[in-house]
Amino acid sequence: MSKLPKLSALTFEDSGWGFFLCAYKEIRTGRGGGEFLFLSLQDSSAQVVAKVMTDVERLKNEFDAGEFVRVEGRGSLYNGQVQLVLSTIRRVNPDQDRLAGFREEDSILSAPRPIDDMWAELQEHLRGVRNDHIRVLLNRLTADNEAQLRVWPAAQQIHHAYRGGFLEHITKMAEAGRFLARAYGADEDLVLAGVVLHDIGKLQELAYDGGAGSYTRDGNLVGHIGLGMMMVREACNGIAGFPIELRSQIEHLVASHHGIREHGSPVEPKTVEAFIVASVDELDAKLNQVRKAIAEDPSDDEFTSWNKRLGRVLYKGTP
Amino acid sequence: MSKLPKLSALTFEDSGWGFFLCAYKEIRTGRGGGEFLFLSLQDSSAQVVAKVMTDVERLKNEFDAGEFVRVEGRGSLYNGQVQLVLSTIRRVNPDQDRLAGFREEDSILSAPRPIDDMWAELQEHLRGVRNDHIRVLLNRLTADNEAQLRVWPAAQQIHHAYRGGFLEHITKMAEAGRFLARAYGADEDLVLAGVVLHDIGKLQELAYDGGAGSYTRDGNLVGHIGLGMMMVREACNGIAGFPIELRSQIEHLVASHHGIREHGSPVEPKTVEAFIVASVDELDAKLNQVRKAIAEDPSDDEFTSWNKRLGRVLYKGTP
Amino acid sequence: MSKLPKLSALTFEDSGWGFFLCAYKEIRTGRGGGEFLFLSLQDSSAQVVAKVMTDVERLKNEFDAGEFVRVEGRGSLYNGQVQLVLSTIRRVNPDQDRLAGFREEDSILSAPRPIDDMWAELQEHLRGVRNDHIRVLLNRLTADNEAQLRVWPAAQQIHHAYRGGFLEHITKMAEAGRFLARAYGADEDLVLAGVVLHDIGKLQELAYDGGAGSYTRDGNLVGHIGLGMMMVREACNGIAGFPIELRSQIEHLVASHHGIREHGSPVEPKTVEAFIVASVDELDAKLNQVRKAIAEDPSDDEFTSWNKRLGRVLYKGTP
Amino acid sequence: MSKLPKLSALTFEDSGWGFFLCAYKEIRTGRGGGEFLFLSLQDSSAQVVAKVMTDVERLKNEFDAGEFVRVEGRGSLYNGQVQLVLSTIRRVNPDQDRLAGFREEDSILSAPRPIDDMWAELQEHLRGVRNDHIRVLLNRLTADNEAQLRVWPAAQQIHHAYRGGFLEHITKMAEAGRFLARAYGADEDLVLAGVVLHDIGKLQELAYDGGAGSYTRDGNLVGHIGLGMMMVREACNGIAGFPIELRSQIEHLVASHHGIREHGSPVEPKTVEAFIVASVDELDAKLNQVRKAIAEDPSDDEFTSWNKRLGRVLYKGTP
Amino acid sequence: MSKLPKLSALTFEDSGWGFFLCAYKEIRTGRGGGEFLFLSLQDSSAQVVAKVMTDVERLKNEFDAGEFVRVEGRGSLYNGQVQLVLSTIRRVNPDQDRLAGFREEDSILSAPRPIDDMWAELQEHLRGVRNDHIRVLLNRLTADNEAQLRVWPAAQQIHHAYRGGFLEHITKMAEAGRFLARAYGADEDLVLAGVVLHDIGKLQELAYDGGAGSYTRDGNLVGHIGLGMMMVREACNGIAGFPIELRSQIEHLVASHHGIREHGSPVEPKTVEAFIVASVDELDAKLNQVRKAIAEDPSDDEFTSWNKRLGRVLYKGTP
Amino acid sequence: MSKLPKLSALTFEDSGWGFFLCAYKEIRTGRGGGEFLFLSLQDSSAQVVAKVMTDVERLKNEFDAGEFVRVEGRGSLYNGQVQLVLSTIRRVNPDQDRLAGFREEDSILSAPRPIDDMWAELQEHLRGVRNDHIRVLLNRLTADNEAQLRVWPAAQQIHHAYRGGFLEHITKMAEAGRFLARAYGADEDLVLAGVVLHDIGKLQELAYDGGAGSYTRDGNLVGHIGLGMMMVREACNGIAGFPIELRSQIEHLVASHHGIREHGSPVEPKTVEAFIVASVDELDAKLNQVRKAIAEDPSDDEFTSWNKRLGRVLYKGTP
Repeated sequence: MSKLPKLSALTFEDSGWGFFLCAYKEIRTGRGGGEFLFLSLQDSSAQVVAKVMTDVERLKNEFDAGEFVRVEGRGSLYNGQVQLVLSTIRRVNPDQDRLAGFREEDSILSAPRPIDDMWAELQEHLRGVRNDHIRVLLNRLTADNEAQLRVWPAAQQIHHAYRGGFLEHITKMAEAGRFLARAYGADEDLVLAGVVLHDIGKLQELAYDGGAGSYTRDGNLVGHIGLGMMMVREACNGIAGFPIELRSQIEHLVASHHGIREHGSPVEPKTVEAFIVASVDELDAKLNQVRKAIAEDPSDDEFTSWNKRLGRVLYKGTP
Repeated sequence: MSKLPKLSALTFEDSGWGFFLCAYKEIRTGRGGGEFLFLSLQDSSAQVVAKVMTDVERLKNEFDAGEFVRVEGRGSLYNGQVQLVLSTIRRVNPDQDRLAGFREEDSILSAPRPIDDMWAELQEHLRGVRNDHIRVLLNRLTADNEAQLRVWPAAQQIHHAYRGGFLEHITKMAEAGRFLARAYGADEDLVLAGVVLHDIGKLQELAYDGGAGSYTRDGNLVGHIGLGMMMVREACNGIAGFPIELRSQIEHLVASHHGIREHGSPVEPKTVEAFIVASVDELDAKLNQVRKAIAEDPSDDEFTSWNKRLGRVLYKGTP
Repeated sequence: MSKLPKLSALTFEDSGWGFFLCAYKEIRTGRGGGEFLFLSLQDSSAQVVAKVMTDVERLKNEFDAGEFVRVEGRGSLYNGQVQLVLSTIRRVNPDQDRLAGFREEDSILSAPRPIDDMWAELQEHLRGVRNDHIRVLLNRLTADNEAQLRVWPAAQQIHHAYRGGFLEHITKMAEAGRFLARAYGADEDLVLAGVVLHDIGKLQELAYDGGAGSYTRDGNLVGHIGLGMMMVREACNGIAGFPIELRSQIEHLVASHHGIREHGSPVEPKTVEAFIVASVDELDAKLNQVRKAIAEDPSDDEFTSWNKRLGRVLYKGTP
Repeated sequence: MSKLPKLSALTFEDSGWGFFLCAYKEIRTGRGGGEFLFLSLQDSSAQVVAKVMTDVERLKNEFDAGEFVRVEGRGSLYNGQVQLVLSTIRRVNPDQDRLAGFREEDSILSAPRPIDDMWAELQEHLRGVRNDHIRVLLNRLTADNEAQLRVWPAAQQIHHAYRGGFLEHITKMAEAGRFLARAYGADEDLVLAGVVLHDIGKLQELAYDGGAGSYTRDGNLVGHIGLGMMMVREACNGIAGFPIELRSQIEHLVASHHGIREHGSPVEPKTVEAFIVASVDELDAKLNQVRKAIAEDPSDDEFTSWNKRLGRVLYKGTP
Repeated sequence: MSKLPKLSALTFEDSGWGFFLCAYKEIRTGRGGGEFLFLSLQDSSAQVVAKVMTDVERLKNEFDAGEFVRVEGRGSLYNGQVQLVLSTIRRVNPDQDRLAGFREEDSILSAPRPIDDMWAELQEHLRGVRNDHIRVLLNRLTADNEAQLRVWPAAQQIHHAYRGGFLEHITKMAEAGRFLARAYGADEDLVLAGVVLHDIGKLQELAYDGGAGSYTRDGNLVGHIGLGMMMVREACNGIAGFPIELRSQIEHLVASHHGIREHGSPVEPKTVEAFIVASVDELDAKLNQVRKAIAEDPSDDEFTSWNKRLGRVLYKGTP
Repeated sequence: MSKLPKLSALTFEDSGWGFFLCAYKEIRTGRGGGEFLFLSLQDSSAQVVAKVMTDVERLKNEFDAGEFVRVEGRGSLYNGQVQLVLSTIRRVNPDQDRLAGFREEDSILSAPRPIDDMWAELQEHLRGVRNDHIRVLLNRLTADNEAQLRVWPAAQQIHHAYRGGFLEHITKMAEAGRFLARAYGADEDLVLAGVVLHDIGKLQELAYDGGAGSYTRDGNLVGHIGLGMMMVREACNGIAGFPIELRSQIEHLVASHHGIREHGSPVEPKTVEAFIVASVDELDAKLNQVRKAIAEDPSDDEFTSWNKRLGRVLYKGTP
């Protein structure tokens, strides 16, 4: 039996075995009264629906959601989407399965760039900060949260919702934001601070251990904008001599980064830097969704099928 | 020359002298090229427009905005509103003018109830808290901010925009909120915490020294919801053993008290208590505006004139 | 065979027999071409989906929607919701089944409080009215509609959508509304009139005979706000000497109780009493939805799953 | 001294005397401290601002708002609008001034068509009704309200806000509505009923005695849609054998004629006839505003100046 | 075996054979792992869902979407909608099947009126145009696009989404629009030009060959309003001496016909004619949806089931 | 008499003479019945209100709106804004006044950068285009419209509303857009095409001769988005072999550049390039408004006064 291809390349004609993260598991009762398993499996490239229709009674106890699994199955089409129909599934036995090539990082939906590259790029941005207060603040907050910053997704499901998505989001925003700051004579250090810290509250808003992110208690009750403001406040207050005006401006960048109140910002941009940060955040999130919708569209048409979240079809170009 | 009546009772037929706070002062150039003074005067009952049309060159240096003044003048009608046309104005000389009856608290727009009464009522509410953590938190935050809490307005201009307005707002909300908490089996202590703390960030959002409130730097850049969350976070963290779940719930009450994101809440109510706090806040603010619009309407009609902020006329009842 | 538990306590591990109202019945064709029955069953505590997958041809004629039924079956999980899979079903034979404990009021989704208690409480509120005109009006309209007022739901599906829901809604609103009227110096009698009459048009808007309410012709074409205004107008005109100003104010309370035109009120609140009635109506309806969402959520998590109508998850508290 | 031209033809170069209705009168205090009179005068063709700057003390008691007046004055330009500056003004002495040509109907802002013509046209429409119930209903309601229907404006200020405007609005709508009913195979009688009755509540919503309409108590508190429904309900109930389904449909036409809830309709159109009535009401009101904006625009440009209510400029055509 | 009835009259009790257009075809995998075919079939009167559950492997290659087919099957109910369950299906063999009565125009969802009648009516409208420039323009654009204008639908799915729908839409609008133009003293020729040309861009926006319309590249990227403006511009420029003011006015009618920017019009109506065209377009599209919802509702109730697009139920009248 | 400073530096203490463009002129009647002139004067740095209160009868014929004028006068404060009160004014006599330093370009509100510099930068961008079709298209359209492109404002009043504003807007957008295109792997040539052409229709939408722009007939009736699409269509069609797919994409960039339909785009972005163009257009326009509001704010406060169009105050930084 051959190995299944990367999930992003899976077709309904493939069959074989593979290692994946089981990101979701539900036992459903079919119409005939029998049970089947409805699953969501991911590797670093994509996430697909999988089903276990046979031998359910035995297989349903062989693994849980959140675990890595080894499966055997074949592709299938359902409403135009490729799914996996599994003949067997079990949780990974790390010691044994590593011999067969299992690696955790290959089995979690991930950013396309290596995390070490993105982290190095972020450090490079931080080294370029001229304002001492801002550089100390950013160094401290990124160092204190390095473990999370390296792997966190940028959102639960809308954009960059995969391992390293947070880092991918802020490094790309840093590139765009610093350029725009220079182009418009804005304070480049402040823009970088806004970029790096605007979503810092997501480290407390989301719980993430490799599968889908989920909301924490504070995530639901306080929200990442409030949490981020409090993290910045605490960090600034821990730095001797941090100017009060600067603290206000950085908290403003966090508070206003959704651009308008309807999107959850309690205050709206009132500085050139805040307009820039909100603009590059919006654009980066939108383009991530556009790229994903185009990449995942299975047809040969010039346009994708209707994308509900974006409320439109997208142009893929002449085939 | 007789003393002018309370400003809330002023008619275009009155004339005389009085002590007021000059809340606003602007030198304007009239069409003929000459200057006149455009002022806003207040006593504890109301605020009215006043003008100095004669002897401007001399009088304009006799006082500044933010100072108490002694004026002489007469009522006048302009677009259906009573104004004061002044023949003379000078800053108050406290030592001398106290002999003529000048008292600061009589010359600042104020809540209708005495502040000491409202403060005592708030203390009574706090004594009723059964949850030790909440009681300690509320006692600490109210004690630490007593001076401001006693005199602050609840908003810059929309509702309760006068001395003691903040205290009036939260004591009335405490009465309503606690009743609703009992009626709906909600946590009465939590509701009271939400009532007392929901606008606590306004102590940092607004600057107030007796005239009109103005926005501080943090008020404009961070906003009272963010500031309030940070004040609560800091206070909770300063209380040994304060439960983390309780802190989340109280921060949620602050964050969600505007009810919907369009009104500036970064998160929307997710607990019974949060729905109650947002409801009584909205109702108390609206009724304060309604009462004010009815009280200030100068006509004998059954309805007020059009109220722009509320977008309607209001029923005053059969004359 | 044991008796099934109350539906609000049903789990996928239960099996047995029970009496229920069949609130909905549909014959569906399955994928294999065979038919199955898709039903909605209710007792006083909850409503659940039920299915008949076997022996359909015979069972489908044994009962109709709107009838009480006796069923045998077992719990089952479908998309995380508990359902009943039935092996047999027939309409109730009242004479015989009463011996086995059948009671109509146990088999209809109902308010948690006994109707007689709520009715007595309403009468108590009415006795407290000081304005003779209002008291006569309320007594007449409640007496004339007592049969319906005792059992009607407050809405077809959004809130208080069960037997006695209307009465539960207005008695709770009366408690809250009268308190707020006193707290704000509003006319307590008028607020009570608004509370009791604001939804009176629903008695003509909805048809209800114990299952789900449905819209009447006038309900769809005229709506409960218009119907309510007409009921009030007719009743006032039937009371000699009823003051015209008072009639206008009460009709205003009915017309404006949805608070804003977007929610279907042709006029918006213009009196203190109208603001109070709209506020307690909104709060009571919202809290009923919140309580229901929390009560029905099957998981052990701190938060409910996504509630589509409220557009959020809700906090259930630490497990 | 010559007679002033019709106000719709007044230019800043005209001077002379005329008879007008004084629709508004206010005593204002000028900057120099002196008083002047700010008035609004109308004849059948237009309404203009007028001012009395001299001899104010004597003239201000010579007339009141709501009275017919005889004035002498000259045209003047203010912000691009023609105004009248008056040298003298007094109330009309009917006996004497009729000799000089005074006629009340010439001095009230009026629909362009003679009222008798429009009334005859309405009667013609009513004679064409085939459904006996509808014909009786319309005859009764129009006969009972003939005096008002002949002179009422269609709105206080937005569209057809002049003597006979109501009649102009419904006769034009009848012409359009009946044609569309035939074109779309709708019930022509029902559409005519909707046209004649949709705004019937305005007879109670507005008070009108020849000048500007004003809102009544019921107009403010209940609104014309609710008032209209109640008038229709009462009239239907007074006609023996009036079918209940027909009553519901006619009330629906009144209730839904604003088309959407945001515009104040408690229910939205659910019949072909209701869609037609709402459409012709909207179009007729809009076109009346458009015509008025074009007619009153003083410039020679191809486009009018910005029309605030319509939110746009309007094309007048090549000069 | 009998012939199936018209699809608009199909019930779950019918069975037999028929010719249809297969407008949609999808191979789905059922829960048991087997495939079935999900189809959409249409004749001139309606479109219904059809399924092939048996003998799938063989039948799935017997036809494609977009082809005419001959089927045998029986009616079936699914969620209250009638569907067809097919026992066999194959593509039409025109030569042979014509003998059995196959005609293409009978098997495509079509406007209720014969196309030749509607086309003759359109020509009659064009002959009535008095302005030479407009008449030449309309004649040229309709002649150049006759083949498409005769068969095009008016939209992909919302209204008049069938063969001849475009022509039905503009002939009905011409009737209504010209009447309103005369009634309001508007330019009848301009209104007709707006009616005929407002959607002309749909000939390039949609691709249509008898089944469901689909969006072209330019339809998605440019949209029919932009495409229509460009078609008008090119046509006007091709007519010697076409007045520039007239071209602007006609382009305005195309650009503004959706009435408001939220609905996709880059400019809003600024002429009487533009208000009329937008009004009749809106009304005709809405009434087509209303008629369709009423016609397709399968129940015997007085009201249709909930119509999602219109956001309401519709009144069908007493059964 | 000294020369007045640049208008951006004018204070109420300045007096002297200067050359300006008279952008607006209106004869107003004052309260005393006398006339005065209300003017708007501009030089390259700012625009201010000016008034002529004396010698009006003679001076009012000495110049017209749209002409360059020589004035003498002094600064004055009105509602916190600096104005000019003129003692004399006459139209410029070019031959004579050039000796005194008059230059047209100094007397028209202008972009801060020299036009030749911006034009050279635009040419540099065009030289960098790799796609031959796009380069030819952009070269042709910019060459054909060079005269206008060099001086046009980017809007009538919202942003970049001055000489050279169009060029400033697109060169800055080109810088930002090309960088983002590279950063996101988008088609840099397409983005540049979108930047250069998105507002090209404004050359026909606005009339501009050095003062304030005004809307043309086509500007009002068709709008710059429609006009721009037509200009692009015509230009593409005039280039042999221009690929049809490319034309569609470029027209899409023009059609969608306002981002959402509410802002006037008939279609919304469906390509990565369209999202980028809409984003940089929005950001550049917003930042231009922000910079202007900060630059023109006369106070020494940390924040500007309320900016009505942006709906907020703006942070100017610590004084």
